[in-house]
Amino acid sequence: MSKPIAIIAGVGPGTGAAVARKFALSYPVALLSRNPSTYDPIVAEINKSGGKAIGISTDVSDSKSVKAMVEKLKEEYGNDVRCAAAVFNASGAFVRKPFLELTEEVMDSSYAGSAKGSFNFAQATLPLLLHLLASTSTPPHPPTLIFTGATASVKGSALFAAFATMKFALRAMAQSLAREFGPKGVHVAHAVIDGVIDIPRTKEWDLGEGGKIDPNAIADAYWHLHTQPKTAFTWEIDIRPGIEKW
Amino acid sequence: MSKPIAIIAGVGPGTGAAVARKFALSYPVALLSRNPSTYDPIVAEINKSGGKAIGISTDVSDSKSVKAMVEKLKEEYGNDVRCAAAVFNASGAFVRKPFLELTEEVMDSSYAGSAKGSFNFAQATLPLLLHLLASTSTPPHPPTLIFTGATASVKGSALFAAFATMKFALRAMAQSLAREFGPKGVHVAHAVIDGVIDIPRTKEWDLGEGGKIDPNAIADAYWHLHTQPKTAFTWEIDIRPGIEKW
Amino acid sequence: MSKPIAIIAGVGPGTGAAVARKFALSYPVALLSRNPSTYDPIVAEINKSGGKAIGISTDVSDSKSVKAMVEKLKEEYGNDVRCAAAVFNASGAFVRKPFLELTEEVMDSSYAGSAKGSFNFAQATLPLLLHLLASTSTPPHPPTLIFTGATASVKGSALFAAFATMKFALRAMAQSLAREFGPKGVHVAHAVIDGVIDIPRTKEWDLGEGGKIDPNAIADAYWHLHTQPKTAFTWEIDIRPGIEKW
Amino acid sequence: MSKPIAIIAGVGPGTGAAVARKFALSYPVALLSRNPSTYDPIVAEINKSGGKAIGISTDVSDSKSVKAMVEKLKEEYGNDVRCAAAVFNASGAFVRKPFLELTEEVMDSSYAGSAKGSFNFAQATLPLLLHLLASTSTPPHPPTLIFTGATASVKGSALFAAFATMKFALRAMAQSLAREFGPKGVHVAHAVIDGVIDIPRTKEWDLGEGGKIDPNAIADAYWHLHTQPKTAFTWEIDIRPGIEKW
Repeated sequence: MSKPIAIIAGVGPGTGAAVARKFALSYPVALLSRNPSTYDPIVAEINKSGGKAIGISTDVSDSKSVKAMVEKLKEEYGNDVRCAAAVFNASGAFVRKPFLELTEEVMDSSYAGSAKGSFNFAQATLPLLLHLLASTSTPPHPPTLIFTGATASVKGSALFAAFATMKFALRAMAQSLAREFGPKGVHVAHAVIDGVIDIPRTKEWDLGEGGKIDPNAIADAYWHLHTQPKTAFTWEIDIRPGIEKW
Repeated sequence: MSKPIAIIAGVGPGTGAAVARKFALSYPVALLSRNPSTYDPIVAEINKSGGKAIGISTDVSDSKSVKAMVEKLKEEYGNDVRCAAAVFNASGAFVRKPFLELTEEVMDSSYAGSAKGSFNFAQATLPLLLHLLASTSTPPHPPTLIFTGATASVKGSALFAAFATMKFALRAMAQSLAREFGPKGVHVAHAVIDGVIDIPRTKEWDLGEGGKIDPNAIADAYWHLHTQPKTAFTWEIDIRPGIEKW
Repeated sequence: MSKPIAIIAGVGPGTGAAVARKFALSYPVALLSRNPSTYDPIVAEINKSGGKAIGISTDVSDSKSVKAMVEKLKEEYGNDVRCAAAVFNASGAFVRKPFLELTEEVMDSSYAGSAKGSFNFAQATLPLLLHLLASTSTPPHPPTLIFTGATASVKGSALFAAFATMKFALRAMAQSLAREFGPKGVHVAHAVIDGVIDIPRTKEWDLGEGGKIDPNAIADAYWHLHTQPKTAFTWEIDIRPGIEKW
Repeated sequence: MSKPIAIIAGVGPGTGAAVARKFALSYPVALLSRNPSTYDPIVAEINKSGGKAIGISTDVSDSKSVKAMVEKLKEEYGNDVRCAAAVFNASGAFVRKPFLELTEEVMDSSYAGSAKGSFNFAQATLPLLLHLLASTSTPPHPPTLIFTGATASVKGSALFAAFATMKFALRAMAQSLAREFGPKGVHVAHAVIDGVIDIPRTKEWDLGEGGKIDPNAIADAYWHLHTQPKTAFTWEIDIRPGIEKW
């Protein structure tokens, strides 16, 4: 039986890559994004530094693409592939716009990326997470499914109708799954990332010293969630810079 | 210039009909549901008892159908039709199911009914609500847009992933719109209906004396929201039977 | 048997006086504040305009004073005095201060005014509210106990440690009482007043047109809460100016 | 300059002792409880196993006692004693009682133990936490102040008026302090411990396999909070058994 793996959806240069690096210290990792150019650098980096990573081009909003991804996992790790940790870090596009200027397409796309994407991802990974429990008397850590949220997961600000609706939806899914799968031994958690992440794209933004979230700290928090025993599951954490106004 | 109207989407025998009756005491009402057989009885009742009501067959999840509905409003009430109150009381189908048995179709349908439906409805009615303000120095009450939510709007219970995601999304939309349109003078509110409504379908359910919500009381609460002046808007109320466990 | 009364604690020129006027249209009202000079004008106004009001000098933070108040009610309205509505609108002093400059006395005083005060008030009025149910087969409206909260009831802002702790505490009490006494037929509700109230003291503050809450609108909301039937109790409403940022 | 210390208030056999053990791996620990018999065993255990611990008999509800405790810290660790982590794990007595049977004394005692106690503790420890920042260019981890909450911190259940009011108050204090001191570099966090802790007193309670929270897992979570860098502070985590209903 092959080693359990970690699956991370959404592996841009911020949270996703940091989470991939962190979990790759303990598990082979499968990194998903639509475009191989997104995961190629981090896959190469992990493999070079002694870890094991593969990238699978996946559109999480498309159930067929997600099913094909699972097939690739089985080719790679065996039909009995087991998952120790799955992290949903993908998102619909960020939209901030007067409500009456929002188009139907924007709403649909926000649904596809955040709510439908997380649905497809959870449907694909939960059987693999459960499989770890069925096949191992005591995995070192309970199988874990983590969803990355945002400020808009808990606050529907003006001009955020398209974005916040689907972040709220993602949070509802995480909460419902935590209640359904916690008793079965799967740890489902949701993180409210409340701030700007320190990545190349935000390098120029001046938010003051310490004003941007170090993605490695998010990865550490996710790892901590993963290591919680089944008697002490956290459903939700918030993460923000100490200097953030909230 | 014709009298401002009230528009109510979702007019089954419970909340929708009660709201229609209540608002028909002050405004001509336009009642929307997919199937005329749903609105026909209440349209007839209102017209017979001295009010004015029309029914418009509308699928709120379909933007074309919602646009056609607006065209019908203009035919009926003039191109300058103004809206005093709009109530979104429609919903995707209620689904309670183990997550891994949920289909993609169920998720999509839940999105269409609750989130997309409320989006289409708000996009169609907000211009008419704003139009009331533009055309009247002081309407007796601020134009009002109310969304009907449920327990699942604030709690993602086990087995409720499809339903709760989209009820959370609806709530996010209501909150975002309240923040965007409140400063413009439109009152946007959200009601968490936390309990079983007393309607023919639930007649047999034994929930104890007073265990079901009287839909007329919901209508009274919505009317109270509508009468709040612009200095005292309520964004959210919860409504439940006094004997309800929560 | 005498008519059921309304009891209002905290009757300054804003919310308290407006609530007194509103409830005095239907009930004899007993108005409580430490200093008769606070209630005298509104007592006189109500009696002059055809209502019935008495003032009782009461320190809600002092259980003896609250018990003495109940004795006065019995002298005035009979030993079987029944209460239709009780509104706790008192508060500890508003304090906004760096935490390390807060004194023990300030904390104790905030406790006394908000948490202990609401405890004493609820202990004194709940028996009178229950008495209405015991003595009347169907009162026109369920006996109602309303607590006035603030933004600080749901948000612990920086520099608000003394004020927010006790507003959170007040909200917890309201919630616990709603769950305990709702099934018995008493409606317990909490209002989050999120904004500046339009009173003489705030007259000079420029918050823009419509930027201050009309206290009469709060009174209307409280009256609406009181009229809700036992199948449709609202536990919490928020009230804020439409132009408020939140 | 002496090594920074950790201070833990409330060191019974559950969370407090586990937190003490965990933080003693990195810091000298000062353990506070009213009765030396509470901290003696864990002080002895830590000192025996290579750590450094002292116990200080302290009544956190009494500001004089808390000030005397600080004096003892200065005697022990020098006038420039610095604090790396402070954990408030004390609590007023747990009370579950019909509201009308609650006495004033119970309310006062709940205030003293939870709200006043946390106030005194925060007033005493924040200067020592800030002192670490003033005296060290880069402590390995930001100074951290953690408050232990409970289910009753976020839910005011029936019969919990005395307990929940003060747990809500504690949470408000934690939130207010997080907002005031986060920007200064002190990490303030609040943990909602939502379940029964596995301690000698609860040994007999049958809550199913995995139904009680391992206090060591709480300690691990607190340590993780302590290690978060200042760009990624968590304000609140919840912790509960995977099989818990919530």
